[in-house]
Amino acid sequence: MIEVYGHGGDLETAAYTYGRRAGDFTDFSSNINPLGPQPGLMEGLTEALSTISRYPDPGHRQFKGALAEKLGLGESYLSIGNGAAETMALILLALQPGTVGIVEPCFSEYRALAEQFGSKVISVRGQAENNFHADPRDMEQLIRRSDLVFLGQPNNPNGVQYGIELLRQYARFAEQEGTFLVVDEAFIDFIVPESRHSLLNEISLYSRVILVRSMTKFYAIPGLRLGYGIAHPDIIRAMTNKQVTWSVNQLALVAGQICMAAPPSYEASTISLITEERRRLREGLGRLGCRTWAGEANFLLVRLPDGWTASQMQNELGQRGVLIRSCAMYPGLGEGDIRVAVKNMKDNSLLLREMQAVIGNGQQ
Amino acid sequence: MIEVYGHGGDLETAAYTYGRRAGDFTDFSSNINPLGPQPGLMEGLTEALSTISRYPDPGHRQFKGALAEKLGLGESYLSIGNGAAETMALILLALQPGTVGIVEPCFSEYRALAEQFGSKVISVRGQAENNFHADPRDMEQLIRRSDLVFLGQPNNPNGVQYGIELLRQYARFAEQEGTFLVVDEAFIDFIVPESRHSLLNEISLYSRVILVRSMTKFYAIPGLRLGYGIAHPDIIRAMTNKQVTWSVNQLALVAGQICMAAPPSYEASTISLITEERRRLREGLGRLGCRTWAGEANFLLVRLPDGWTASQMQNELGQRGVLIRSCAMYPGLGEGDIRVAVKNMKDNSLLLREMQAVIGNGQQ
Repeated sequence: MIEVYGHGGDLETAAYTYGRRAGDFTDFSSNINPLGPQPGLMEGLTEALSTISRYPDPGHRQFKGALAEKLGLGESYLSIGNGAAETMALILLALQPGTVGIVEPCFSEYRALAEQFGSKVISVRGQAENNFHADPRDMEQLIRRSDLVFLGQPNNPNGVQYGIELLRQYARFAEQEGTFLVVDEAFIDFIVPESRHSLLNEISLYSRVILVRSMTKFYAIPGLRLGYGIAHPDIIRAMTNKQVTWSVNQLALVAGQICMAAPPSYEASTISLITEERRRLREGLGRLGCRTWAGEANFLLVRLPDGWTASQMQNELGQRGVLIRSCAMYPGLGEGDIRVAVKNMKDNSLLLREMQAVIGNGQQ
Repeated sequence: MIEVYGHGGDLETAAYTYGRRAGDFTDFSSNINPLGPQPGLMEGLTEALSTISRYPDPGHRQFKGALAEKLGLGESYLSIGNGAAETMALILLALQPGTVGIVEPCFSEYRALAEQFGSKVISVRGQAENNFHADPRDMEQLIRRSDLVFLGQPNNPNGVQYGIELLRQYARFAEQEGTFLVVDEAFIDFIVPESRHSLLNEISLYSRVILVRSMTKFYAIPGLRLGYGIAHPDIIRAMTNKQVTWSVNQLALVAGQICMAAPPSYEASTISLITEERRRLREGLGRLGCRTWAGEANFLLVRLPDGWTASQMQNELGQRGVLIRSCAMYPGLGEGDIRVAVKNMKDNSLLLREMQAVIGNGQQ
């Protein structure tokens, strides 16, 4: 097991485990834009390197202004964070929910952060035959019994969205029950704009809905850390009051500004590459005897053919320089479940080839 | 007043206020190594830029290993943070002190962070005629009545150290009373090694003493954010449990590793430049009728001549492109108190010249 810190993308542990250099793996265990950073970003950051001898702006003013303009929102609706992870931590520190509700399987940080900051965690299970969505009655129970509920949109590790009407229904029910609803949209940018189900454009209708977004996956800058929260200004103010001064570094702010001016072609190419390659990868995995779900993000939840465990497959592939995420430790998933990122055609073909080789060997 | 976020170094607010570009100021309001980053750091970071498309190591293993070796300590004594500010926040989140004690005047984050995370803050005052050190009896009272006490070594904004024997006495008293003692050594690297009074080499004797250090001032990388805490492994573990995954970014970790291999000449040149220039700056300020204290760090606390307020002087100098830190808002200091960084000869001469011009004009 290489998820010693509970996450994919841990190239250092992989390097120790499989005896290769961290840079020598093809990494399907973290979900980063396969196109890499947008044209011009590296040049912009190289130029900005000299500004690391100054403190970052503690108010994040230039990036926040650019982001507000791109989203068509007032700046008072925005909290800039050191990654989506800090944004979630600030939500918990600001709102201090006694009980946090989650729908399993889901991103492990919902439970980890909630427990870290002293909340009790309760959960309901999504069912495999229903794309791992919770039954709406279970969901309303969860909202009623929690002070704050996390929902992945699309959900990690299965990549499926809730429909907009159901989402509105949950949001209204949360308002009525006095429960905060945190909708984690870390991967929503990978979905074709007209298919995204987001409360973004109606956020001012809600006093208890918070959207969390990440800049690091779509713009391929997880090493820099940049995310943001969108919510009623009262919630944003409470989050800001819990934020450590200068927590967002200077180069992340510069990168954020540059990404706000990303060429539309970069965003469109990313989405069409992911859409096409996800389809191809699903088909290929199906031919290998794997079950997949109708995810819409840049990753797929995969159930290996009978007789294969995630840990076997991870180990076999790791020795071949290919990293996947084991999902065996997710409540609600099983020993044979893995998650793979959707990457470019060459890498995805490599994954299919190596999995085929491993499965072929295993059957001999 | 340009300290709208409570700190110096806010070039964006200065830019708005004085109508110049952020890069066009000579900044004495933040205390950064005037030599700038060490030779090779920028080249190393430029090379490492391509690694921002990976997640940072959540265990900070390579940097932590290098740091442990440099300090001659076991890794279990070290917590790596997103700046000294996050390190202090983790201490408070981990230890949850009901009452936090501070010696005013001091770094404003001690109070701000303690209040942010729900502690009650009590304080004693250092006296100007005693280099703003607290009376030892006041100090013992403070330790007795607090669950955690912050001490600046050297203290910000006056730059004076406590003697090692007094420090040991406070540490032993804190152990005996069950009080945590946080010694903030953010600026200690600027002091000649043989004159540093630190509990570093005897840290294993204490179960309740925590040292906090910053990499950003001495190595001139405040934009990247990197700091660390040194304490008993039980405290370090509790801090790690409160840390948000990936809070320390990839380039900060790379910079940290490079700085651990800084050429001795860079460290020696920095210290001798600061020592010599601090002496020269004090003399010059004295000739302008200012009072200064015997600080040992890379900044000086300055009391302006009678009739001058910090806000007047800050405003006059700001319009001339020179930034200073007003200390008027520090409890225990007054309207005429400022703090200035010790920079290189050219910059320090500029400061003295501009202050002389301002004071000269004012007296006409």
